[in-house]
Amino acid sequence: MTLFSKIIAGEIPSYKLAENARFYAFLDIFPSQPGHTLVVPKIEVDKIFDLPDTYLDGILTFAKPIAHAIQEAFGYNRVNIVTIGFEVPHAHIHLVPMDDMGDADILTKKSKPTPEELTEVQKKILEKMV
Amino acid sequence: MTLFSKIIAGEIPSYKLAENARFYAFLDIFPSQPGHTLVVPKIEVDKIFDLPDTYLDGILTFAKPIAHAIQEAFGYNRVNIVTIGFEVPHAHIHLVPMDDMGDADILTKKSKPTPEELTEVQKKILEKMV
Repeated sequence: MTLFSKIIAGEIPSYKLAENARFYAFLDIFPSQPGHTLVVPKIEVDKIFDLPDTYLDGILTFAKPIAHAIQEAFGYNRVNIVTIGFEVPHAHIHLVPMDDMGDADILTKKSKPTPEELTEVQKKILEKMV
Repeated sequence: MTLFSKIIAGEIPSYKLAENARFYAFLDIFPSQPGHTLVVPKIEVDKIFDLPDTYLDGILTFAKPIAHAIQEAFGYNRVNIVTIGFEVPHAHIHLVPMDDMGDADILTKKSKPTPEELTEVQKKILEKMV
């Protein structure tokens, strides 16, 4: 069972933003900027393009209202998509807040907010998703 | 008319890999690695999450066989997705070949292959798409 499956199952707590039958979205706890989010399919497939078509078609429309809520909550220019995936063998999409091209480098921009800060970020985003 | 619309219309030549009613895929001429590809919707929308749902659902399944062909043609570990989009106001997805996390930084890894080299890369990928 991957780290992400444990999070989806609730065995490991997460700052959840949304969930449906196929996907689960929660805050990255090492965000490049506040609101950096992970969208994970509820099946364990390592590489993004090995997901079944029913997951590839669906993941971006599932992410869309979350991305817009992140953008609005913090006034970002846009929210972008990045997949990398060498750490956890469970495909996922990063929703990455960006104001300029420098924000694309999520690997060197990692931060470590407190649980209180993450809870506040979660609250701000959820308020925009109503 | 954006740079990408001119490419789709054939006014600017490109190393095309695939096309359907909604999307067009061609080689990035400043690739992070051989096979780095752009997938562009045939409508001019600046930000990826402002695309209509019929484009968000569809772009990854359109990209899937191209991504697998790139991976096979050069033996990459995987092909990933990156969107940035501050240079051309026309949403697009980068298909980025990656063997490890260092390959995620497409902005500093830009290369400048010759037309002959790009033609050869295009040929190798197309052979895997049959």
